[in-house]
Amino acid sequence: MLSEFDLIKRYFAQHHIQDSRVALGIGDDCALLNPSPGMQMAISSDMLVSGRHFFPDAAPRMLGHKCLAVNLSDLAAMGAKPIAFTLALSLPEANPAWLAEFSAGLLALADEHQCHLIGGDTTKGPLNICITIFGELPPGTALRRDAARSGDDIWVSGSLGDARLALAAYWNEVSLDPQVHQQAALRMHTPSPRIALGMALRGIAHAALDISDGLAGDLGHILDKSGVGATLLIDQLPAGPVLQTQPQDLRRQFTLNGGDDYELCFTAAVSNRQQILAAATQSNTVVTRIGQIDSASGLRLLDDEGKDLHLAYQSFDHFVNP
Amino acid sequence: MLSEFDLIKRYFAQHHIQDSRVALGIGDDCALLNPSPGMQMAISSDMLVSGRHFFPDAAPRMLGHKCLAVNLSDLAAMGAKPIAFTLALSLPEANPAWLAEFSAGLLALADEHQCHLIGGDTTKGPLNICITIFGELPPGTALRRDAARSGDDIWVSGSLGDARLALAAYWNEVSLDPQVHQQAALRMHTPSPRIALGMALRGIAHAALDISDGLAGDLGHILDKSGVGATLLIDQLPAGPVLQTQPQDLRRQFTLNGGDDYELCFTAAVSNRQQILAAATQSNTVVTRIGQIDSASGLRLLDDEGKDLHLAYQSFDHFVNP
Repeated sequence: MLSEFDLIKRYFAQHHIQDSRVALGIGDDCALLNPSPGMQMAISSDMLVSGRHFFPDAAPRMLGHKCLAVNLSDLAAMGAKPIAFTLALSLPEANPAWLAEFSAGLLALADEHQCHLIGGDTTKGPLNICITIFGELPPGTALRRDAARSGDDIWVSGSLGDARLALAAYWNEVSLDPQVHQQAALRMHTPSPRIALGMALRGIAHAALDISDGLAGDLGHILDKSGVGATLLIDQLPAGPVLQTQPQDLRRQFTLNGGDDYELCFTAAVSNRQQILAAATQSNTVVTRIGQIDSASGLRLLDDEGKDLHLAYQSFDHFVNP
Repeated sequence: MLSEFDLIKRYFAQHHIQDSRVALGIGDDCALLNPSPGMQMAISSDMLVSGRHFFPDAAPRMLGHKCLAVNLSDLAAMGAKPIAFTLALSLPEANPAWLAEFSAGLLALADEHQCHLIGGDTTKGPLNICITIFGELPPGTALRRDAARSGDDIWVSGSLGDARLALAAYWNEVSLDPQVHQQAALRMHTPSPRIALGMALRGIAHAALDISDGLAGDLGHILDKSGVGATLLIDQLPAGPVLQTQPQDLRRQFTLNGGDDYELCFTAAVSNRQQILAAATQSNTVVTRIGQIDSASGLRLLDDEGKDLHLAYQSFDHFVNP
């Protein structure tokens, strides 16, 4: 069996990091970063637990992708540019085949975003993956949750609900053709962090976050922090390509409450619509206007006829839902 | 049961962080730090797993202390000054009594070192605690593992082996009077990170690391990275107050190979002995000279008569040892 040190060296050491900000990578008590002068650092941690955030038999390459993607998505939601990350990994065993696949998926996405693995920890234990990620952005440009203003448009990137639809099929809540299920499942297993869009929205958008637990619940955090309410046009929510083929009720439920989308939800002044669309074009990302911020608290859901729909909505919460 | 958000707010939100470097703390997609101009950032992650790094029924207040202490110790080993940390926590249940104690122990040590909790994650799952810590230091002053030079003195802070002795008593490898066991166990459960010493050693010491897995194994990392060897005077190793009362063989084994000490082991030029002692006085920390760095590779162990002792020594390794 591989020792801890061999394991790190063999699978995770990225040789020749070409980045003057990384003064020291894996292998000492700490990594050393040289922050870019005048830049603020954005930091986020996510912990993914087997059986809760992913299936115990999840394909390790996609799992490696997803673990980093959810962290990159947090940087995107602040408008930060990725620099580096640490990886702490608890594994039941040092399985070389699993590690080769996991690290390949992780490092491919890291390379794509020039985000360097600079340190971490490995230990024996129940499968648990904790990544802490570092990005940078000019001070004062972060897209914060508390910055929504009454009258703002609400926007969302990409499409919603295909990940939740794939999960529903795994759980036999819905029946999907295997090929169709696989298409939706790719969305669940390999989300695309919206880094380029987040950076392009600096100075244009007001509030932003990434949708991990479902649009309604996550938007609720913006509303709470900003002391505002919102009206969403439920039939304007952009359903994913697979979800589009499903009945209206499922479309509404899964675009509104489906988790694992990792799209950005953001608000911006009506006068900035052209700039938002230009940022979307520049970052090669579709964006859709889905409602507006109100001064009255609460979340209202209107259909295309303007009828208020009192659908149940609640954020996914690890300690409330079983 | 508390929701995830209530839980974070109630137990972990440190109100009124008074530090201009912390631009944004808990509650958004990312925390925001303003690095001090011209300073390098030191970053380390440690993951502690129930049943492996601590007993499943560990007293939560001491566990909170220990989780942060092992991370602070990594900063100390680089000579970095603490700034902030993130906490990712997987819990089987949101037990208010456990959380109140855990957070009290964690935040008391955080306050002592003015190290701010700025973000993290909580989820349901097997008990797992992952902290990522951030410190700062002037560029070029980090105490790296690859900086030992032939002829250097080898030093160690504080004392060694009491944590391992406590563990031996838990495992019934040795028999200790309950009060004596408790004294040794405090050393195991509430280590003192040597932050002040680490900072005082900047520019004076060459290589350094913290001893988590045992002196011999950890010193081996310095030897490997620096391309040197060492001779240790095994009977000069400073045994902890409880271990001092034990037979010689146990003293030798546990000072040399005992884990969980979280003392600093460092090397420095012979010409810097007075400066090392001054740094120790300044940081109110005992240091002991225990050997020297050799150009010949390998680790030699001499007793006080100069006899070479071929004791078995090996670094604790999570994937080699069962």
